[in-house]
Amino acid sequence: MKILNDPIYGFITVPHPTVLRLIDHPWFQRLRYIKQLGLSHLVYPGALHTRFHHALGAMHLMGEAIATLRGKGHAISDEEALGAHIAILLHDIGHGPFSHALEHSLVGGIGHEDVSALVMDALNDRFDGALNVGLDIFRDRRDHAAGMTHVLHQLVSSQLDVDRIDYLNRDSFYTGVSEGVIGGERILKMLEVRENRLVVEEKAIYSIEKFLVARRLMYWQVYLHKTVVACEMMLVETLRRAKDLAMNGTAVFASPALQRFLSERHDRASFNDPAVLADFLRLDDHDIMGAVKVWAAHSDKALSTLASDLVERRNLHVRLQDTPWDGEQVTALRERVAKALNISMAEAAHFVITGSVVNNAYDPSKDRIELLYKDGSLRDIAAASDNLGIAALSTPVQKHYLAWPRWLGK
Amino acid sequence: MKILNDPIYGFITVPHPTVLRLIDHPWFQRLRYIKQLGLSHLVYPGALHTRFHHALGAMHLMGEAIATLRGKGHAISDEEALGAHIAILLHDIGHGPFSHALEHSLVGGIGHEDVSALVMDALNDRFDGALNVGLDIFRDRRDHAAGMTHVLHQLVSSQLDVDRIDYLNRDSFYTGVSEGVIGGERILKMLEVRENRLVVEEKAIYSIEKFLVARRLMYWQVYLHKTVVACEMMLVETLRRAKDLAMNGTAVFASPALQRFLSERHDRASFNDPAVLADFLRLDDHDIMGAVKVWAAHSDKALSTLASDLVERRNLHVRLQDTPWDGEQVTALRERVAKALNISMAEAAHFVITGSVVNNAYDPSKDRIELLYKDGSLRDIAAASDNLGIAALSTPVQKHYLAWPRWLGK
Amino acid sequence: MKILNDPIYGFITVPHPTVLRLIDHPWFQRLRYIKQLGLSHLVYPGALHTRFHHALGAMHLMGEAIATLRGKGHAISDEEALGAHIAILLHDIGHGPFSHALEHSLVGGIGHEDVSALVMDALNDRFDGALNVGLDIFRDRRDHAAGMTHVLHQLVSSQLDVDRIDYLNRDSFYTGVSEGVIGGERILKMLEVRENRLVVEEKAIYSIEKFLVARRLMYWQVYLHKTVVACEMMLVETLRRAKDLAMNGTAVFASPALQRFLSERHDRASFNDPAVLADFLRLDDHDIMGAVKVWAAHSDKALSTLASDLVERRNLHVRLQDTPWDGEQVTALRERVAKALNISMAEAAHFVITGSVVNNAYDPSKDRIELLYKDGSLRDIAAASDNLGIAALSTPVQKHYLAWPRWLGK
Amino acid sequence: MKILNDPIYGFITVPHPTVLRLIDHPWFQRLRYIKQLGLSHLVYPGALHTRFHHALGAMHLMGEAIATLRGKGHAISDEEALGAHIAILLHDIGHGPFSHALEHSLVGGIGHEDVSALVMDALNDRFDGALNVGLDIFRDRRDHAAGMTHVLHQLVSSQLDVDRIDYLNRDSFYTGVSEGVIGGERILKMLEVRENRLVVEEKAIYSIEKFLVARRLMYWQVYLHKTVVACEMMLVETLRRAKDLAMNGTAVFASPALQRFLSERHDRASFNDPAVLADFLRLDDHDIMGAVKVWAAHSDKALSTLASDLVERRNLHVRLQDTPWDGEQVTALRERVAKALNISMAEAAHFVITGSVVNNAYDPSKDRIELLYKDGSLRDIAAASDNLGIAALSTPVQKHYLAWPRWLGK
Repeated sequence: MKILNDPIYGFITVPHPTVLRLIDHPWFQRLRYIKQLGLSHLVYPGALHTRFHHALGAMHLMGEAIATLRGKGHAISDEEALGAHIAILLHDIGHGPFSHALEHSLVGGIGHEDVSALVMDALNDRFDGALNVGLDIFRDRRDHAAGMTHVLHQLVSSQLDVDRIDYLNRDSFYTGVSEGVIGGERILKMLEVRENRLVVEEKAIYSIEKFLVARRLMYWQVYLHKTVVACEMMLVETLRRAKDLAMNGTAVFASPALQRFLSERHDRASFNDPAVLADFLRLDDHDIMGAVKVWAAHSDKALSTLASDLVERRNLHVRLQDTPWDGEQVTALRERVAKALNISMAEAAHFVITGSVVNNAYDPSKDRIELLYKDGSLRDIAAASDNLGIAALSTPVQKHYLAWPRWLGK
Repeated sequence: MKILNDPIYGFITVPHPTVLRLIDHPWFQRLRYIKQLGLSHLVYPGALHTRFHHALGAMHLMGEAIATLRGKGHAISDEEALGAHIAILLHDIGHGPFSHALEHSLVGGIGHEDVSALVMDALNDRFDGALNVGLDIFRDRRDHAAGMTHVLHQLVSSQLDVDRIDYLNRDSFYTGVSEGVIGGERILKMLEVRENRLVVEEKAIYSIEKFLVARRLMYWQVYLHKTVVACEMMLVETLRRAKDLAMNGTAVFASPALQRFLSERHDRASFNDPAVLADFLRLDDHDIMGAVKVWAAHSDKALSTLASDLVERRNLHVRLQDTPWDGEQVTALRERVAKALNISMAEAAHFVITGSVVNNAYDPSKDRIELLYKDGSLRDIAAASDNLGIAALSTPVQKHYLAWPRWLGK
Repeated sequence: MKILNDPIYGFITVPHPTVLRLIDHPWFQRLRYIKQLGLSHLVYPGALHTRFHHALGAMHLMGEAIATLRGKGHAISDEEALGAHIAILLHDIGHGPFSHALEHSLVGGIGHEDVSALVMDALNDRFDGALNVGLDIFRDRRDHAAGMTHVLHQLVSSQLDVDRIDYLNRDSFYTGVSEGVIGGERILKMLEVRENRLVVEEKAIYSIEKFLVARRLMYWQVYLHKTVVACEMMLVETLRRAKDLAMNGTAVFASPALQRFLSERHDRASFNDPAVLADFLRLDDHDIMGAVKVWAAHSDKALSTLASDLVERRNLHVRLQDTPWDGEQVTALRERVAKALNISMAEAAHFVITGSVVNNAYDPSKDRIELLYKDGSLRDIAAASDNLGIAALSTPVQKHYLAWPRWLGK
Repeated sequence: MKILNDPIYGFITVPHPTVLRLIDHPWFQRLRYIKQLGLSHLVYPGALHTRFHHALGAMHLMGEAIATLRGKGHAISDEEALGAHIAILLHDIGHGPFSHALEHSLVGGIGHEDVSALVMDALNDRFDGALNVGLDIFRDRRDHAAGMTHVLHQLVSSQLDVDRIDYLNRDSFYTGVSEGVIGGERILKMLEVRENRLVVEEKAIYSIEKFLVARRLMYWQVYLHKTVVACEMMLVETLRRAKDLAMNGTAVFASPALQRFLSERHDRASFNDPAVLADFLRLDDHDIMGAVKVWAAHSDKALSTLASDLVERRNLHVRLQDTPWDGEQVTALRERVAKALNISMAEAAHFVITGSVVNNAYDPSKDRIELLYKDGSLRDIAAASDNLGIAALSTPVQKHYLAWPRWLGK
């Protein structure tokens, strides 16, 4: 069996030849060149890990979780186990580079979940149906009589899935934000199954509290860090400006695959064209950042300013507050930008950005995290904890930002 | 300068010859033989670290904190810095072995703080007053005009002191309860001083939340773990029984120093006798556990049963609930013990134990943890956090336990 | 299944009820109070880990090794696997406290291997033969036709056994000597079996080189550190002096179990008396250090000086050289001691100590470490490595020390 | 002062505004997009760290080293300390993407050291001479009377410099090859100065042995791993083929900066043209891998095969031996490739590659690593060590490889 080094778990064993063939497929290999945290490395220089490594790490944890459940007497067939490994391996296969930014600029109306669905089906065709069970688990098709499909689905996607456990640990490891480290191994060892649902033993209560607090911390300290969000906004606006120019016939440098998405409008329907899907699956971080770098010398003032600010890491000023920002304040800033660069107000809108970010660490309206007591009863973690904070973590927190170029001054 | 290895910080540098002389003093060396977490190693086999290593670790963090404050322009004289190192080094010097257990059995009416005070003064005499500044910092004697005494005192003893930061990290490291790991280094780098008080920069907010949550988790998972508490209770009852026997003239094996505390009644006043203090400072884990082991073969049935249960780690059964336990239930259990061992009800009381444990992770009625905002304003962490949980952590949580011998059955 | 926390591996799972019963046995529980590295904590304050934790850790690695071999198609029956776990769990069961020091003072003519053999047989009786397979593996009884007995024995005891892998990692972890960390997990994954012998895949060559170098480094930096050796010598001499006094009728404080070994001569034959063995198995660190501490106030000048030097950590001066020390130099130092303490030359001999330490990291005359090449051939690691140093590591290195009290001056 | 997160050291503090300005300069920022280990991530998926982070890490260690030397009484002025930080920060500034591969394909006759020299001078101009002291240290201009220039130069570049200490630790951390971890902190604490040279205290001997062994291990296990070397060769051949085509007028996709180096011949002289240097400093990993990916669909069979093999990670078969490979064997393989792809023998030469790699862990002919004994004498590490292996590490080891496409079969 193939063994891969992993700085976090030591070694990751590839459990089956089909899994190895999937990993070797170009569509999976491309995840090597898509950073898990996009532009976060501009704030946390170590955050260069990729969706490739995350997918492998989550797959490793899936193996641990299955071993625990089997050890507690729950029957999981080899076919189901292989399916679960496949499902988690492919859970992010539809992500493009800087996924969130692209969805807000080049490709509208289609999210990475939709692309993932298309890719999984296409792969299953190429693999002659070998991914069937994996796709059933991924899509939670519960018609498998009495099987573990739903439980395995919850390991792939729920509020306590191996996806989250891996990415919290991995993102924390690579950013160096040690507060995000969680006792994932301990949580996995506490997994149980009741009423065909994944639950955790009572004694895991503090570990899960810590997990939720760590998740919230990682959101505010990394994923929604104001500079990270601002950098992403800069990329969105850069891509929008480039697309505006390309759609209007101005030449902008791009790889052939990227060129397609700059010069044509695309939506969910157009991805049914295999050539479009294929080109999308050719995109990775190189296409985007390679083009942005060239654009820094473009003759269009707006594009070149946006691009060079990003490439040379002249971050935006960002302010956060609990309420939306005043429209007049935004307009005033845009007027200053328009004047400074001698561009139109429409163009200036690329430089002064407002919006909001929101996070809730635990959403009891979704599938809940339930504790299993020794007497066999189940309780929601938020109800069980004597830490009122867990209940508090269920409340979404929203923050509104206003960002403008650093060179504009305060 | 002397350098010591530390598995947590890598190296600890002894910053001054006076500090080295203090470390070499027999009263400090004895801390090598007093485990930081008493009997917790019966649950967490790695928890064998000593008060000696903790004191050195906290001293190391004091150096880091002082370097940070100096780097931010706060004047701390070399004399004050040395004093702060001395104060933290000696903060636990009065602890005896299994400190809490001894205070509930052999020595009544005098706590480790009182003993520490006596020891510090005695040491200061022997060091010809070289510890004066250190003692002023420890005792928060603020008459030093405009100095940093109070701030340094807060580093020694407050809700965000280096004592807590070291013991949380150290206890977490040695127990293997990874959820207790905190970003102590990050918190120390965020320290500031305002209005002659220690505060933290606003951006440390999530790290402090994590610190409070980790502290709470360590309480319930380690310090107040029901088996750990039960083992401590077993030790208390064993020592009480041995003292009862010794006071009544029955021979019980003990080192000379321990013999004094078994066969005489002691209180705060008696510690003014230098011979009593000296004997107390001869006690360490060896005296207690060495004697308990011999008692396992004592002719007194109650003592030998208590001692052998502890030595051979036959833990008590423990149940926790939110309200006090019913007196009749306790009596019924004691009757079963009395019958099983053929001992009196008074003796049986040693085997069936009830009481309560309480924890609150953050106590806003004490010196509060304050955040310093960029505009210079200060806010209490509980008020500043959008995590209602911090406010929740301010509420004490109490649990009542009932424990009885495992051999008694359920 | 019972799960234990371990700071190094995260969790250790107890694989079988029989193993749990063994762990719970008082003879195994006593290993909780016997430090793995004896007095090394006087140099490395973190080195407080016990033989109890090491035995559990090695057992954990045994499970990993067996899983690897089974994964490569080697049939190991459940009975053999249980036996291998038992064999490694008990491999050090005969160790007394400060094992090496005791063998050179209180108990002559019987080593910890002999005691282990006695204890294993006694345990097997109490367990009604449930340890039979484990003892066969431990003793390498190869008459099991075609079984894996010898291979499993090599995992328990050879130049690449799980004992060494655990103790190198564990000692390195707790001392904080990070250079001793080895890639144990990687080595275990490379294990193979050929010709009924344990071998390692070729690609492990660099990991094994690192393992041998780390082992050598730990020897000189920790196990044979001159201060550590000197402290052990101080303990030997203290015990010898106490025994001399006790044999001559002078009262010396001791627990009843220790008293037996102080006041009577014991050898291999006397351990056949169950009462002697039982008392030996009552000894742990508490008995020894608890007594030494009391001896620091003994009326015998030699004993009290030896004991108080050790308790208050007044280490000896130690010098190392490649050749034996000159007898006249030794005599001169002893004369100075005799004069300083007003004691006889015979008594002074306890204070001026000479001897030698020796280490070779790899001994090709024992069972060798063999690499398995892709073509199926086997080569000794020393021959295979292009690092001449491996060959060099095969040569024993001897150093001679001379030690005398610090208070004597240079 | 600006603080950056680092997964390895926790935090890196930027020590001076000039250093911050340097870090913010586009020529330094570009190092964010140049992986330290090039294509090694194809074997070790975690190895995505960049020259940017390495340069910052080495700068952090420089600060530690200077603090140690100052603590031992060696006068290092603030100006010298700043210079040393600048020198190490810029030591790799001339590296292009996949540096070694580019030097063997696109840019001949000019190495990264030469480019570094040009860049440093250009930067110094832009910084109005603020880098003067730093450049003197980098270039070891010892005419500074009695200063520490040479010692600081050795910290930048010698067999025990902070460059090596950081990259060994960092590469080991990110690849997950734990055997490469070294006790860098311990070594730095043992640094001393004698006769105006950097030496290490005697007691560091085992740490340095471990450092040399770890370095050798990282060479064979990572830097010269046969698959890593093969991937690099694939990139060299891909770039050579693309350049051949471009020089002959065939269109090949490339960013404008890369286009210059594909379609023109460049050598040391041409870099004196500021436009050429500027374009070179626009290249990063995006330009190279972004172009290679597009080339996978090029109409030239040789180019598209080379590029797609690399992009889709169809590694070469590689064999190693101690002697050069037989020319006839090479020719035979090329013939099979020519036939399989229907290309010329000249083109087929891109697919069958032979050459050699060489490593010696310690080169005593360069500046040696010297141990400082307590009597003040100095000895070379190879002579001082009783480990013959250190002497052995001084002997270069050479291996010859032969590589061909996996699709060709064995």
